[in-house]
Amino acid sequence: MDRLDGRKNHQLRPVTITRGINKHADGSVLIEVGDTKVICTATVEERQPMWCKLEGKGWVTAEYSMLPRSTGSRTLRDGTRGKPNSRNLEIQRLIGRSLRAVTDLEALGERTITLDCDVIQADGGTRTASITGAFIALVEAAQWLVERGLIGKTPVSDFVAATSVGKTGDRVILDLCYEEDSTAQVDMNIVMTGSGRFVEIQGSGEESSFSREEADRMLDLAQKGIMQLVNYQKQVLGPLAGSIGGGG
Amino acid sequence: MDRLDGRKNHQLRPVTITRGINKHADGSVLIEVGDTKVICTATVEERQPMWCKLEGKGWVTAEYSMLPRSTGSRTLRDGTRGKPNSRNLEIQRLIGRSLRAVTDLEALGERTITLDCDVIQADGGTRTASITGAFIALVEAAQWLVERGLIGKTPVSDFVAATSVGKTGDRVILDLCYEEDSTAQVDMNIVMTGSGRFVEIQGSGEESSFSREEADRMLDLAQKGIMQLVNYQKQVLGPLAGSIGGGG
Amino acid sequence: MDRLDGRKNHQLRPVTITRGINKHADGSVLIEVGDTKVICTATVEERQPMWCKLEGKGWVTAEYSMLPRSTGSRTLRDGTRGKPNSRNLEIQRLIGRSLRAVTDLEALGERTITLDCDVIQADGGTRTASITGAFIALVEAAQWLVERGLIGKTPVSDFVAATSVGKTGDRVILDLCYEEDSTAQVDMNIVMTGSGRFVEIQGSGEESSFSREEADRMLDLAQKGIMQLVNYQKQVLGPLAGSIGGGG
Amino acid sequence: MDRLDGRKNHQLRPVTITRGINKHADGSVLIEVGDTKVICTATVEERQPMWCKLEGKGWVTAEYSMLPRSTGSRTLRDGTRGKPNSRNLEIQRLIGRSLRAVTDLEALGERTITLDCDVIQADGGTRTASITGAFIALVEAAQWLVERGLIGKTPVSDFVAATSVGKTGDRVILDLCYEEDSTAQVDMNIVMTGSGRFVEIQGSGEESSFSREEADRMLDLAQKGIMQLVNYQKQVLGPLAGSIGGGG
Amino acid sequence: MDRLDGRKNHQLRPVTITRGINKHADGSVLIEVGDTKVICTATVEERQPMWCKLEGKGWVTAEYSMLPRSTGSRTLRDGTRGKPNSRNLEIQRLIGRSLRAVTDLEALGERTITLDCDVIQADGGTRTASITGAFIALVEAAQWLVERGLIGKTPVSDFVAATSVGKTGDRVILDLCYEEDSTAQVDMNIVMTGSGRFVEIQGSGEESSFSREEADRMLDLAQKGIMQLVNYQKQVLGPLAGSIGGGG
Amino acid sequence: MDRLDGRKNHQLRPVTITRGINKHADGSVLIEVGDTKVICTATVEERQPMWCKLEGKGWVTAEYSMLPRSTGSRTLRDGTRGKPNSRNLEIQRLIGRSLRAVTDLEALGERTITLDCDVIQADGGTRTASITGAFIALVEAAQWLVERGLIGKTPVSDFVAATSVGKTGDRVILDLCYEEDSTAQVDMNIVMTGSGRFVEIQGSGEESSFSREEADRMLDLAQKGIMQLVNYQKQVLGPLAGSIGGGG
Repeated sequence: MDRLDGRKNHQLRPVTITRGINKHADGSVLIEVGDTKVICTATVEERQPMWCKLEGKGWVTAEYSMLPRSTGSRTLRDGTRGKPNSRNLEIQRLIGRSLRAVTDLEALGERTITLDCDVIQADGGTRTASITGAFIALVEAAQWLVERGLIGKTPVSDFVAATSVGKTGDRVILDLCYEEDSTAQVDMNIVMTGSGRFVEIQGSGEESSFSREEADRMLDLAQKGIMQLVNYQKQVLGPLAGSIGGGG
Repeated sequence: MDRLDGRKNHQLRPVTITRGINKHADGSVLIEVGDTKVICTATVEERQPMWCKLEGKGWVTAEYSMLPRSTGSRTLRDGTRGKPNSRNLEIQRLIGRSLRAVTDLEALGERTITLDCDVIQADGGTRTASITGAFIALVEAAQWLVERGLIGKTPVSDFVAATSVGKTGDRVILDLCYEEDSTAQVDMNIVMTGSGRFVEIQGSGEESSFSREEADRMLDLAQKGIMQLVNYQKQVLGPLAGSIGGGG
Repeated sequence: MDRLDGRKNHQLRPVTITRGINKHADGSVLIEVGDTKVICTATVEERQPMWCKLEGKGWVTAEYSMLPRSTGSRTLRDGTRGKPNSRNLEIQRLIGRSLRAVTDLEALGERTITLDCDVIQADGGTRTASITGAFIALVEAAQWLVERGLIGKTPVSDFVAATSVGKTGDRVILDLCYEEDSTAQVDMNIVMTGSGRFVEIQGSGEESSFSREEADRMLDLAQKGIMQLVNYQKQVLGPLAGSIGGGG
Repeated sequence: MDRLDGRKNHQLRPVTITRGINKHADGSVLIEVGDTKVICTATVEERQPMWCKLEGKGWVTAEYSMLPRSTGSRTLRDGTRGKPNSRNLEIQRLIGRSLRAVTDLEALGERTITLDCDVIQADGGTRTASITGAFIALVEAAQWLVERGLIGKTPVSDFVAATSVGKTGDRVILDLCYEEDSTAQVDMNIVMTGSGRFVEIQGSGEESSFSREEADRMLDLAQKGIMQLVNYQKQVLGPLAGSIGGGG
Repeated sequence: MDRLDGRKNHQLRPVTITRGINKHADGSVLIEVGDTKVICTATVEERQPMWCKLEGKGWVTAEYSMLPRSTGSRTLRDGTRGKPNSRNLEIQRLIGRSLRAVTDLEALGERTITLDCDVIQADGGTRTASITGAFIALVEAAQWLVERGLIGKTPVSDFVAATSVGKTGDRVILDLCYEEDSTAQVDMNIVMTGSGRFVEIQGSGEESSFSREEADRMLDLAQKGIMQLVNYQKQVLGPLAGSIGGGG
Repeated sequence: MDRLDGRKNHQLRPVTITRGINKHADGSVLIEVGDTKVICTATVEERQPMWCKLEGKGWVTAEYSMLPRSTGSRTLRDGTRGKPNSRNLEIQRLIGRSLRAVTDLEALGERTITLDCDVIQADGGTRTASITGAFIALVEAAQWLVERGLIGKTPVSDFVAATSVGKTGDRVILDLCYEEDSTAQVDMNIVMTGSGRFVEIQGSGEESSFSREEADRMLDLAQKGIMQLVNYQKQVLGPLAGSIGGGG
């Protein structure tokens, strides 16, 4: 039985990453995963948090937000609500950790790269699309530093990409759209490096639970999907891909 | 002497309005005015502010925000700063007033249309681009109501568009880009209807002042520019343009 | 036909400015325009915003607020609401810009003058009364600096005053009281210098619009009113008036 | 030895209460105690807190704030700081409790009277001046209700007034001005009814302490001062004074 | 090689759960896991969120906070910082999801049970200790409802407990104390039901990554630890344990 | 007639102070006064407020908060409400003043001691229990400084403890529990030093008042109770008690 949009269980949605979409940013992409669209921009600043300063290293951080009408019904802006959105904060911590896992913070030097991930249109998987897209903006920002002679070579040591897997009834499916996500018993977001290692496993059975065997099937499926995303990232980066991991 | 980007004093920047860019919204456009890019979405909700409820009429309101890296250097998000941005609030009040000036709130019925204007990339004139673009999204949302039989005909009674004029040295120039705006002695934002009447005149001489004769020249120039924008709006709306003002 | 309070269309309300009403402040007045009463105090501080520091100049800024029961029904305090009042912020930006237009910020030196405008009783025109009154407090604060030898002569280069004009039916009227303001189709706040140049034109047709000819009539009327206010300011300042513009 | 301003230890500063200073409020006074000046306005609203609603009674509450330049150096506004001022909150709770001690909340009926106390100029004793002045505004608001036939007679059952006493060296002094207050070892604020009973005793030895004998002397002195204030309140209220306590 | 505190890799710290430690709450425990101490209280309220109301079911939610000096150096309170702590919000969402996974929200009826988890002293694993402890308080609150005849039997359908596992060098270790946690390359928090199914897997390699084989070893180890915790929960609950899952 | 819990009018509730309850803090106790339980921890930090820095002295301050379910019905957390709790702020100012009254801030040196008082369970008298308990934690923190050779001897110059007294009908009672407190006409919190001098008298007749003779009886009763508390503090401190006031 096929899925809502005709995909097979193990099939990703179409992915497009468009580079260079913002003339001010030090790196920028629009990533589209099915109907999910996220703008990711990178900003380099010659400052870093206090705890990094003490250790003489840099920092990579992220912010995540959704435009009010990126969703089916309009959501309030953080500034209007007068307090930060806890879901957004949780997601931006995830994005930041994922990117730092493939960045040599000492090699980055005493500066901060901030990745802003703003969801223009949401249809499930906005946090994983943000990671996959923000990685490209991060590589561009690192290249920006190299080109200006501020660092000798890119501090990005590996690729990183992310997708979701879920369990709905007996089926384990890859890259859930919004409608699948809201009916799945289990939703798992997986972040992996280009060399096939896990950076994050965030599996959660809201009002449900899952067996070890189901966990294993979901991890297997996620890995296959992420390897496809990494291949697409390489294609999008072109010659720049060669620099990752100290090459170039 | 030509301007920075080769334009004549009385010349608008290239304008493009792309409709239907958000699958969730009840109206949506991407407006590009030179390098300024704003996403405008319209949301219809079956609620209205208390003061409208008492008078049995509807409401049209706007929210305005800039993505952190829409600007040359990164700006903090409202949610991060923990308090609303007073510039944003001032601008969204302007957008809301401008759109209400061409909307019959009684004919709209007991509902609210919210126009979200999110600046993706800024290069001067973001508030006036927001008005020009949000007008199209408003017309679409009104049509959405007509198509569902919720109102008999569009409550939008006229076109509305906006641009800036400024004074730099002895020259009076139209549609200032960011660099012109930051060096101009006087900056004036003008909102006019399709029938050539003023909705707003916001002229301000930051650390400067201007004569009556200069004010007159700026108002003249703005009117010419806005009439061109209204013509472009008509072209963008196509058959829908005929409905404005009770037609269709 | 006369107006609600018997005034002619072109007539200002009675204006009184009482100086020296606060023993702590470096300049202070109570301005009364009809039943509108605003306390304006000036504070000199030996600090300035970062962007002024870099340019070696000073800053003039304003804050505006209304006492809870200055209005017909009680309004909540900003501190109680937990967020700033966007109308107040918009007004204080206007007051600050107006005063800076007649102040030589380099001559002021590396310091800030803050004008606090607190509305004790409101009956329309509180923002324009604040500008007209705060100007006097600013001149006093400048004199305070001169008397202490901190600057050689006043950095205030011209007078500045403000009033409102409006359109109600076919009539164009000057200096609207609250009841006139709430029924007018167009409300315009005008700030001008003593030499008859515009500093701000803020005209707005809430749910309405106005023709160029109407705009012209309103600007004419405002200019006449403001020149009377400037004359009264000169009288209030007495000998101190001579110092404005580098004299004295 | 006389005090800074020539007063004897047991002497109050000159007190003036001016009634009817706000055309919108349901009761209003300007109280001046030496150089301390507070505007007190009363607002009647036909609503009350939930806990009063359940008991079918009304509520009397107060808000207290200082204008930024009421003090020697300028203080930030609550709205600017983004959080309430804890000193202000403590004081307004004191004012509210003091007024409720002489108000029959059941006789008031299901409504709220809010007393806004805004300090225009501060020179010590702003909280006690607020109580003494707000009492007059409260009586006026009660009379406003009686005149409209909303209640049969005033719910105000007694007079209430307040002053400070302090200990400086061996001397016990009445009604401290700012300079005395900031050097006193003990500062005590006392609220009493017209019939000579205590409503509040707030005695505090910041970085100091005081003996029982000193406490007794301070209480004696406060009582004498407050009885003089109550006599002045009676004079200010004129015929209205007769209504207090169910008379009239 | 043994661990810092002499434990084996697969060994839990000593766990103690003390019931009935708060006379007001509808369920309460103090859970101690090594030097980590958390007070968990349950509160039943006859209200629920809007989205539950529409579906006629109840809600179980959690709040998590640390006393300022529960940590090695003092941390600011949320109220002092003026904004919520994003780490706390992330943790309380985890606790809530974990408890809802073993609660039949329809059987709970239209009410909310709130679990407050306040960390008195922290030494690693505060979020997992909170889940293990809060479960007991939840069972007590459910029993409180049963005893009052508000529901027929407990809506708690299974046990739930949690612990952490981590990777440090080549070793995979169970139940990390603070010092182990801060040096581990991978930190994984696992929540499981009494029947051995996963509710949450939260594995994160901060500035690091892990292989599939390492993930498998960590999941195995966590499962063994959690089963021991569930056994202890049964012992702590005594006869009440029989009610879980519809028994009793 | 005996009281609710069988006590005589002049009788304190059972008091227990347990020292050393937090392994991270520089001083810590759990104080239990009847069913009221408060955790008090002391933190020494090598920083102090700006105004102390200028005078070369240190600072002692306090924070006070209640766990959400320390009370009969659950109360919202400060962080959830988004604004500080004014009652908490008033109480923590009282605790801070009380402790500073018996601390030589110059002898403390340029550092801050913060006393966190967190109410675990409330049954009246939480603020006075906080003072009595925080004093012990303060003494421990001072000893911690002495032991590390950072100061030569304790800067604590005297004991300080607190209790409440109240008036209910004709009776004057000591150390009110919650139920007594909520029905008393007058509630007075008294803080005294070990040498029998007052630090604070906070007497308040909510919707009531009290005579001088009643005030005297309440002060007498409080003094007797506080002297018993000081004796218990001495016993709890053991040998450390000898250091207070410069001894030891």
